[in-house]
Amino acid sequence: MSDWIDTVAWNAEGLVPAVAQDAASGEVLMLAWMNREALERTVASGEAHYWSRSRKALWKKGETSGHVQRVLEVRIDCDADAVLLRVESVKGIACHTGRRRCFFNRLEGAGGERRWVATDPVIASGDASDA
Amino acid sequence: MSDWIDTVAWNAEGLVPAVAQDAASGEVLMLAWMNREALERTVASGEAHYWSRSRKALWKKGETSGHVQRVLEVRIDCDADAVLLRVESVKGIACHTGRRRCFFNRLEGAGGERRWVATDPVIASGDASDA
Repeated sequence: MSDWIDTVAWNAEGLVPAVAQDAASGEVLMLAWMNREALERTVASGEAHYWSRSRKALWKKGETSGHVQRVLEVRIDCDADAVLLRVESVKGIACHTGRRRCFFNRLEGAGGERRWVATDPVIASGDASDA
Repeated sequence: MSDWIDTVAWNAEGLVPAVAQDAASGEVLMLAWMNREALERTVASGEAHYWSRSRKALWKKGETSGHVQRVLEVRIDCDADAVLLRVESVKGIACHTGRRRCFFNRLEGAGGERRWVATDPVIASGDASDA
């Protein structure tokens, strides 16, 4: 039975956005995309797989970097068009820039003086090919 | 100066996915979409605005329901193609089904017996026109 996966409202490209949240800290680590195979493999293996839109390839998170995400929980939203993963971020790095999370840029300032400021340090050397 | 908004990597439809996270609990509440105007209004007003893809309309969260999201922080990811809002969910409801969050369905079971199970109670009567 694969009814559960047929519930997902894939977009016109057969993809769904997936948010990875650190299960321990609650931090939102990243937003990536999944196709059907990525979600199936994520659920079957317990490790996050995504679809790279730029490389047009299935991508196991941490395949070369070792920054694997162990998936503790898979959720879907009310419209079934977004996925939420609660994960353990094995080496504590989610971002290909070597940061803990991809959302490291915060909007600061006011009025006409707003700008994005990187708030998080680089912990590990980045590996753009395998975030 | 609107440089900060020009940093955003809008998709082909001029949209970017935006994740709203409860600033107090850390709970991921919802994923919605923003166009340029929605993000500008969110930042200018301090209250979350989104773009409804189904209604093709700008949408102030809570405009009729009162379930306003006060925005404490706006973040953007490494590729500038996803936004993260840390919000106060004014009446504690983010979902149009009347639940605290839209991600109320958890994948449960194993092997061929997996299914989505709603884990969260309905707190308020829903208002589909204004989640």
